[in-house]
Amino acid sequence: MKALQDDMPDNNCYGCGPNNPQGMQIKSYWDGEVSRCTYMPKPEQCAGPPQFVYGGTIASLIDCHCVGTAMAAFHEKEGKRSWCVTGRLIVNYLKPTPIDRPVELQATIEEIGEKKALMRCTMYSDGVATAEGEVIAIKVPDSWRS
Amino acid sequence: MKALQDDMPDNNCYGCGPNNPQGMQIKSYWDGEVSRCTYMPKPEQCAGPPQFVYGGTIASLIDCHCVGTAMAAFHEKEGKRSWCVTGRLIVNYLKPTPIDRPVELQATIEEIGEKKALMRCTMYSDGVATAEGEVIAIKVPDSWRS
Repeated sequence: MKALQDDMPDNNCYGCGPNNPQGMQIKSYWDGEVSRCTYMPKPEQCAGPPQFVYGGTIASLIDCHCVGTAMAAFHEKEGKRSWCVTGRLIVNYLKPTPIDRPVELQATIEEIGEKKALMRCTMYSDGVATAEGEVIAIKVPDSWRS
Repeated sequence: MKALQDDMPDNNCYGCGPNNPQGMQIKSYWDGEVSRCTYMPKPEQCAGPPQFVYGGTIASLIDCHCVGTAMAAFHEKEGKRSWCVTGRLIVNYLKPTPIDRPVELQATIEEIGEKKALMRCTMYSDGVATAEGEVIAIKVPDSWRS
């Protein structure tokens, strides 16, 4: 099955770019309702205690998963591909997230307008919500990329 | 000059842990008013276009710089070291941040209570603010680390 990120050419993003060999290369799958991403944290992506996932990695996952889903939603709505950037990112950390197992992110579109989409996302570890976030994704002109 | 992070033993954090050889190892310096951190982004820490810094890296810098400063502030206020975690992280992205030069973060303590500190942070590139953030740092018992 093709991931949303497989449909974004020339993407070097550290979080979601297939072109970035040192990046996280997340993959998101959207059924039109809920967008899902499963990610296995690397041991070095830890917090102060090595058994928990680093908050910055959690923020990165929520950011890229939501923006990738917003891009897919704009694509579907408008019939053409647009690039989006993050305007605002909010993360609430609910519990420590174990590093030794995959996390699953579930994102939904709260609102989508002409230029902005408001996304909500929850991150789960073994079915338990450990973080939740909100992202405002903003469409940018192609000139942003050059 | 000793950085705040040099005073945190056994810190494996991907963002600020001296014990994490693959991490970002940020260094923060606090004069009691403003806490500063200068960081040179790595080429792979890029957004979709390779000339801009990845939003997740910016979130990570704001997160660790603020939490490290909050820990130092609790230490000073209480005369003993406490560990803090991030309760909430908000980042507003103002402009693209060039990747080919250092960024400077400046954080201040907005409020500090018994258990929580509210931090504000602005990130600059060549003196221009490119992102601003807010972090709620929460003191945790030592048992959190074990």
